[in-house]
Amino acid sequence: MMNFPSPADIREAAERIRPYAHRTPVMTSAQLNRLAGCELHFKCENLQRIGAFKIRGAINAVFSLSDSEAAGGVATHSSGNHAQALALAASLRGIKATIVMPENAPAVKIAAVKGYGGNIIFCKPTHEARERTLQEFLDASGGELIHPYNDFRIITGQATAGMELIEEIGAPDAVIAPVGGGGLLSGTSLSTTYFAPDADTYGAEPALADDAYRSIRDGIIHPPLPPATIADGLLTGLGEKTFAVISQHTRRILTVEEDTIRKAMQLLMERMKLVVEPSGAVALAAVLQHPKEFSGKKVGVIISGGNLDLSQIPVLLQTS
Amino acid sequence: MMNFPSPADIREAAERIRPYAHRTPVMTSAQLNRLAGCELHFKCENLQRIGAFKIRGAINAVFSLSDSEAAGGVATHSSGNHAQALALAASLRGIKATIVMPENAPAVKIAAVKGYGGNIIFCKPTHEARERTLQEFLDASGGELIHPYNDFRIITGQATAGMELIEEIGAPDAVIAPVGGGGLLSGTSLSTTYFAPDADTYGAEPALADDAYRSIRDGIIHPPLPPATIADGLLTGLGEKTFAVISQHTRRILTVEEDTIRKAMQLLMERMKLVVEPSGAVALAAVLQHPKEFSGKKVGVIISGGNLDLSQIPVLLQTS
Repeated sequence: MMNFPSPADIREAAERIRPYAHRTPVMTSAQLNRLAGCELHFKCENLQRIGAFKIRGAINAVFSLSDSEAAGGVATHSSGNHAQALALAASLRGIKATIVMPENAPAVKIAAVKGYGGNIIFCKPTHEARERTLQEFLDASGGELIHPYNDFRIITGQATAGMELIEEIGAPDAVIAPVGGGGLLSGTSLSTTYFAPDADTYGAEPALADDAYRSIRDGIIHPPLPPATIADGLLTGLGEKTFAVISQHTRRILTVEEDTIRKAMQLLMERMKLVVEPSGAVALAAVLQHPKEFSGKKVGVIISGGNLDLSQIPVLLQTS
Repeated sequence: MMNFPSPADIREAAERIRPYAHRTPVMTSAQLNRLAGCELHFKCENLQRIGAFKIRGAINAVFSLSDSEAAGGVATHSSGNHAQALALAASLRGIKATIVMPENAPAVKIAAVKGYGGNIIFCKPTHEARERTLQEFLDASGGELIHPYNDFRIITGQATAGMELIEEIGAPDAVIAPVGGGGLLSGTSLSTTYFAPDADTYGAEPALADDAYRSIRDGIIHPPLPPATIADGLLTGLGEKTFAVISQHTRRILTVEEDTIRKAMQLLMERMKLVVEPSGAVALAAVLQHPKEFSGKKVGVIISGGNLDLSQIPVLLQTS
């Protein structure tokens, strides 16, 4: 039996991140409410520092280390937002961050990690190479492993987004967050359970990357599928900690088609003037694709991030 | 001698529009402050209803009509945001709006006006044809002309954006707004003069459409130049009312290069995750291009709108 983070843990995390992370705004749109047939409250983590919720978990993890733990630095593997988040969190605490990144990581992500003073070790772009390269580094150099999502310090940090959302709008009927590795969804599910106990939490996942859906359905962790969805932030599989939290505290995982993700992204950009990455639009996509689940309800929707290559916007919005 | 709108007029306009327009957020970015060397406060009118500040003036104009004036409906010519704004304002009051639009207006703008129940009359795409077609309609059918900018009811409505900005951030050192026909800049200049009397107001204008700059310099209204800038919302020339207000209450008009507009647009989208139209990025562009004018100052920057064809983003961001 695992000990999940408690309400007090989440409140402590909120105190810990307050000096460093934004309290992001919650936005609404009468037009989108009419279109969706429910009352939508968007928690805008695309307006968070580094453009994604990931900074919450990274700061909570880095700042909950003791001085002696912190002295050895932190390390992780990530090609995405967690890499930047950990590099920034470490620089805020004045300690070293080492990030194992695949050698084909986008130049802009590499530059961002370097910009925060992160130390990068490149590896072959396979899951095995990432794990092995990181382990070799930790064995040789020490340092604290901060996993991108399968870590309760990370989950607790991500939970603060849902807590802020509920503080802002009062108890909703439902809260929905995208699911990749499950850090954000685990944290959101815990915050909803604790701070809005009558509300249901939903996960939203691309049908082309539905390993979390199948994992929860079958009661075992299925590995991630090969990359096929435009929501490239949601390609990772669950870890045993996120699997456990989601199994117990998430009502349902809803899968969405690619064209619905494109439509949701377009609506957020056109109607709400928010730059969102495809993964950041998946929660709204789930509301649009499963209208009966949300009809007439007050729904908190987490926009997880807004980091994308602007030159790709027309391609990303092109429906089939 | 013209009677300019008074502080009381602007406060009244704010009351009038309050039930219908958003009080838009003011956003900041530590990264952009570092880059610009000053303290920037962005008034986000791209997050306004219809995606632009224009709804403020339209609502103020439409709702300040007496019942008998309103009964005959309102009319204007516009191919842009004022067309949508007036159609929406009229529908909110339950009266008729007639909009003269050039026959080559973008389909999306035509659809938006129709969506608000506006009655469209098409004309040839010349300034003369627009004026004549509108006059013919007014002669035949009556109705109240609501000019897009050369109208003190419009200017007073647009002034509420600057007033809200000052209420929100306290007295700034400078406020900067883009200038096309001059409605927004006139209103902003009046609000700054009244509500932050020690602050300077600046206009921002593309060098490729610098008729306002030359008009103020030469003391006569120069006609607009042929379309050449990507900031297509700023192509109109000043009217005698906006010319008079700007001559008296604006410190300077700063011109900007196209590449600076592109850079400002990219920064707002990438760093602040805000969808802005090129015209909406011109005020930030002026801060970037004239750093000495703003160095170390507290600067209010009005992002005027966010309506653009998303498929054009890569083209718009491509620097020469």
